[in-house]
Amino acid sequence: MDKILVILTFAAAALALLFAFITSRRVLGFSEGTDKMKKISGSIRQGANAYLKRQYKVVIIFFAVMFVILSVMAVFKLLTPYVPFAFITGGFFSALSGFIGMKIATAANTRTANACQEGLNRGLRVAFSAGSVMGFTVVGLGLLDISVWFFLLKFIFKLEPEAITSAMLTFGMGASSMALFARVGGGVFTKAADVGADLVGKVEAGIPEDDPRNPAVIADNVGDNVGDVAGMGADLYESYVGSIISACALGVVAASNFNKVNGIKAMALPLLIAAVGIVASILGTFLVRTKEGATQKQLLGSLSRGTNFSAILIAIAAFPLVYFVLGSELWLLYFSILAGLVAGVLIGQATEYFTSDSYKPTRNLAATSETGTATIIIGGLSVGMLSTLLPIIIIAVAILVAYFVPAIGLEEKIASSVGLYGIALAAVGMLSTLGITLATDAYGPVADNAGGIAEMAGLPKEVRQRTDALDSLGNTTAATGKGFAIGSAALTALALIASYISEIKALLGEGTEAFDKFISDLSITNPTVLVGLFVGACLPFVFAALTMNSVGRAAQSVVKEVRRQFKQIPGLMEGKGEADYASCVDLCTRASLKEMILPTVVAVVVPVVVGMILGCTGVVGMLAGATVSGFLMAVFMSNSGGAWDNAKKYIESGVHGGKGSDNHKAAVVGDTVGDPFKDTSGPAINILIKLLSMVSIVFAALVANYSLIGMLMK
Amino acid sequence: MDKILVILTFAAAALALLFAFITSRRVLGFSEGTDKMKKISGSIRQGANAYLKRQYKVVIIFFAVMFVILSVMAVFKLLTPYVPFAFITGGFFSALSGFIGMKIATAANTRTANACQEGLNRGLRVAFSAGSVMGFTVVGLGLLDISVWFFLLKFIFKLEPEAITSAMLTFGMGASSMALFARVGGGVFTKAADVGADLVGKVEAGIPEDDPRNPAVIADNVGDNVGDVAGMGADLYESYVGSIISACALGVVAASNFNKVNGIKAMALPLLIAAVGIVASILGTFLVRTKEGATQKQLLGSLSRGTNFSAILIAIAAFPLVYFVLGSELWLLYFSILAGLVAGVLIGQATEYFTSDSYKPTRNLAATSETGTATIIIGGLSVGMLSTLLPIIIIAVAILVAYFVPAIGLEEKIASSVGLYGIALAAVGMLSTLGITLATDAYGPVADNAGGIAEMAGLPKEVRQRTDALDSLGNTTAATGKGFAIGSAALTALALIASYISEIKALLGEGTEAFDKFISDLSITNPTVLVGLFVGACLPFVFAALTMNSVGRAAQSVVKEVRRQFKQIPGLMEGKGEADYASCVDLCTRASLKEMILPTVVAVVVPVVVGMILGCTGVVGMLAGATVSGFLMAVFMSNSGGAWDNAKKYIESGVHGGKGSDNHKAAVVGDTVGDPFKDTSGPAINILIKLLSMVSIVFAALVANYSLIGMLMK
Repeated sequence: MDKILVILTFAAAALALLFAFITSRRVLGFSEGTDKMKKISGSIRQGANAYLKRQYKVVIIFFAVMFVILSVMAVFKLLTPYVPFAFITGGFFSALSGFIGMKIATAANTRTANACQEGLNRGLRVAFSAGSVMGFTVVGLGLLDISVWFFLLKFIFKLEPEAITSAMLTFGMGASSMALFARVGGGVFTKAADVGADLVGKVEAGIPEDDPRNPAVIADNVGDNVGDVAGMGADLYESYVGSIISACALGVVAASNFNKVNGIKAMALPLLIAAVGIVASILGTFLVRTKEGATQKQLLGSLSRGTNFSAILIAIAAFPLVYFVLGSELWLLYFSILAGLVAGVLIGQATEYFTSDSYKPTRNLAATSETGTATIIIGGLSVGMLSTLLPIIIIAVAILVAYFVPAIGLEEKIASSVGLYGIALAAVGMLSTLGITLATDAYGPVADNAGGIAEMAGLPKEVRQRTDALDSLGNTTAATGKGFAIGSAALTALALIASYISEIKALLGEGTEAFDKFISDLSITNPTVLVGLFVGACLPFVFAALTMNSVGRAAQSVVKEVRRQFKQIPGLMEGKGEADYASCVDLCTRASLKEMILPTVVAVVVPVVVGMILGCTGVVGMLAGATVSGFLMAVFMSNSGGAWDNAKKYIESGVHGGKGSDNHKAAVVGDTVGDPFKDTSGPAINILIKLLSMVSIVFAALVANYSLIGMLMK
Repeated sequence: MDKILVILTFAAAALALLFAFITSRRVLGFSEGTDKMKKISGSIRQGANAYLKRQYKVVIIFFAVMFVILSVMAVFKLLTPYVPFAFITGGFFSALSGFIGMKIATAANTRTANACQEGLNRGLRVAFSAGSVMGFTVVGLGLLDISVWFFLLKFIFKLEPEAITSAMLTFGMGASSMALFARVGGGVFTKAADVGADLVGKVEAGIPEDDPRNPAVIADNVGDNVGDVAGMGADLYESYVGSIISACALGVVAASNFNKVNGIKAMALPLLIAAVGIVASILGTFLVRTKEGATQKQLLGSLSRGTNFSAILIAIAAFPLVYFVLGSELWLLYFSILAGLVAGVLIGQATEYFTSDSYKPTRNLAATSETGTATIIIGGLSVGMLSTLLPIIIIAVAILVAYFVPAIGLEEKIASSVGLYGIALAAVGMLSTLGITLATDAYGPVADNAGGIAEMAGLPKEVRQRTDALDSLGNTTAATGKGFAIGSAALTALALIASYISEIKALLGEGTEAFDKFISDLSITNPTVLVGLFVGACLPFVFAALTMNSVGRAAQSVVKEVRRQFKQIPGLMEGKGEADYASCVDLCTRASLKEMILPTVVAVVVPVVVGMILGCTGVVGMLAGATVSGFLMAVFMSNSGGAWDNAKKYIESGVHGGKGSDNHKAAVVGDTVGDPFKDTSGPAINILIKLLSMVSIVFAALVANYSLIGMLMK
């Protein structure tokens, strides 16, 4: 029976990877277009490849150092010997997800531009197919990695369920570290290039976006691929895997308290939900098509049709699944999964409301441009802050439903562990549609790149119009995708906090005096918890500041380089001289690699330091503080950024003076401020809050034995 | 013995009020200057008076409604009958503090301008004296109000200590509600006028600040008085009173657990520290003087001399005081007071580091103006976010010291209640120098107004230079004062959370099953606590958004009115026509009164609603979440705003192109964005976090008996 479960998840992982492979063949079958297009696309591909190679060289040092540290800890019995290896594989697969996504995106950009010459639907198909390759690679590799480890640890090394999930959480830490490098590095690259290109090109020199005379234009397009594609791939791989393994871990805990269910089954349920999600997502992709000359609304409708269909399919299929796996006593956990699934959709809609120019907030924001730059900045900041309210309520209700409903009728001690399992399953439910949601999200940067290539290659105007239509739709799906990523991050982080507590329980021993004291000390009024809460809540603020500063510094160096080229390359502005694109790419590469190190090191070191000072209760406080404030900051920054971006687009559609007016200039400033908000700092915070938990779990034994406050108390 | 303590606090309160009275006589003894100056000052005074009168008319309705609600609750035995009356007096004295501060400030502005004609030192003396009147009125009224209630409840109604502190907490709620009205209303007024005047005057029409041709210029000066003076007075009255009464409440709890100390003594200690603080602050004011032609640094030095002297005096005097009142067993509580006092000074210095143009952060921020508006906005936001780290560490260490040091050697149960008392005493220690700190803070708007009057009355250039020197110093002291207000707010809010828990203990009964369940349910991993944490942490974001929107809306109406007058009043720009100042004042008054209602109602209603749904544990989570995220948001917003302001001033000093350059224009946008950050939203959040706790305490009985989750659990 257990083996059948493993085989099913292997099969689903294989199916996802096969589907991604077939789709990628289809994408590559399209024509690349003219030689000029090939050349431009070649430069972008080259730049992205070069960047990733150099990034991996830096990252590998970090992984080597961590491997040594973890191995030493394993020698001292503070960890099991599987941990260092699990850590490495998590990082490897996360990087691989990003790499494959980048490969297909850089191959699909020129093909999308070329397909748009034939029609909007054909363009959509190519771009969306590229997105699908990425989406299904991520879920396929994620499920494969988990299944392989599960298989090894269970059937080869024959470990107990607790030991299996404990090792698997480490591989989550590897994935999260890699994701943070990819998100911060890629995020700094893309926004430094974007901001730099816009500030000198659009604002100072007055040339259009993606104009080939702008030396930063290739770097900007490379940035889309290494940031919005490779960064996002690594990021969502981490989210997906993190949610599943934390649910596995809490499933084992719940099962051990509730002797009617076996631990392996409780651990298998999240894997099976993910498997069902893969099948449903694949079916959903077939619904994504549009007719020629489709409006924005129809385009969005065709994407929503696919995702909604998948979500409904999962909602239906999950019910018999839960009943079959867990039996009649725990079938109410179905509502936890459903709560997550529904919350994901609702958060997406709330995000759309606050960031799309079809609704009041963004339209009102555009109107504030009438009184100048300062008022549109204030307006955008307050839209973002206000927009935290709805997602908070949605997440709050989801937590309450996911926790309390499955616990109905159970006795108290069991109820609590089943409830926590429910919260973890809600995260899995939310992310079960990831295959298709990520496809709709990742297609955006492909369309964006296609637009750039169309512009640079001088394709006819209607091609650019079509790529613009696809791109602008991509902004909406990107915003929805971000809401989704944040919501699942919050639920997963909560589940990881619960996993941390079970880890401490395993270390101290259930029923011991030390563990009972730990539990009673978890009161929110205990000063170590409170101080942990303050410190943890501060981290997203500091992290956002560090990443924004990184973008600022890197962008300034790009600005100076572009200004230098405009001045020194003869005939550049007249279209006679050729810009030195490679120097801008190289500049962004060096800057972003330098900038990505500090934030990641902070995220890994802080939980250990806080733990060594404040002890385990302080760590729990810190994790809760970081989760809550991280959720708020991520929503605030993503939505402010999205609203500014679309307010600018709304003005460009001709209202409030339209393109080129003073109002438009004010909106461009807002958009530029929003760039690092929504594409660097905001998404990085999602990863941060989970990485903090995973690091805490891995170093739990160290902290439990050697904290300063623990020693003083003795 | 008990009576002697009461007499001592009465005496200190009387001394503060007497000193304020004598100082005000001295201020009024200075000449008002020319007729033109008198006329301008008269218009400002008139506008401020009219505003406050109309504000009180609105506020009185709120107080009447609350009085009825509280009375009904008292009838149903959900509250004691003293509560509604205590609520009213808290509001009354808070309003009175603001009113007296405004009165003296509007009298001192023209006298300061006139004194600056004679010299810098004389100007400083007048402005600082006016600030002192405000500072000592606030502490005098605060201590008086507490002493009167203490006397009445203890000696006339002969209540038990627990019942006394419980009633006194309600009067804190009255003070906080009033403070929030004053801060939000005043903050919207002053920033709407300021932003409106700057946007049209400075940016569009290109006329200098405070130019009499600008129709919003009087409104701007009125705003300084009703926002920065009256608003701040009400605000700090609330902080001062809140910290003392929460310490009284926790002192009683600690004493009841530790039978060697009597409750009345533990309650008297914070009052006596406040009394010592008053004496020390009065002595400190005599050290504030400067020589003619003093540099900025020397001016700041003369102010710091006064505050540092007072702080050292308190640090010395508190030791014998604690020993005398509490005896040898609890003398370590001295270190709690010291921790608060030192933390206050350090937070002030950290704030200065991040917001003063003598240090790197603000200088680097000024440099980001070289690449345009967007980069200075990003830079200012990240300076503010990064600047949260040091205050968090300072507060964290202060909490740990204040809690753990006095508990050394005590047995566990006592240790915890003594530790919480320690945290409350830390807040009292921090605020003990309020008399003089507030004087250095409140003198700023007086100097600012004096500058405006000098400009409008056409006084010689060197007068304006002197008022500018005083004003710019005021920016630094204002920033320090804000750090101070935020730090004490966080400690007080934590103490209030502890008070809330004792309130629940009193309601449910110690040792009962219900109370034990409540305590064990306070675990930070309990979903109701977690959901409360999410909701609470969201409130400062929403609150900041609401208040920023208010400023934005009000400022836009001012912009339109000023543009209208420029267009329609013939000869205005040539200095021949006269601007209609009154219409702008009226506009700001109406707008700010309308805007102040929603935020205050939100702050009062939300804790009750959250409590009715999530129960008492959810309320504790909410309060903790709001405190932590409120602290971060308040520091972030105040420091971003301060840094932008001083970066602009730094550029005006001649670097990066100086006044009128593009870089300067970018910095002006930053400053304008920072205005509502630092003067409306940031300070209002301080009050919010305490008001939430006080409301929760007052409605504790209701929530404990009738929450939804409580009913479902049964």
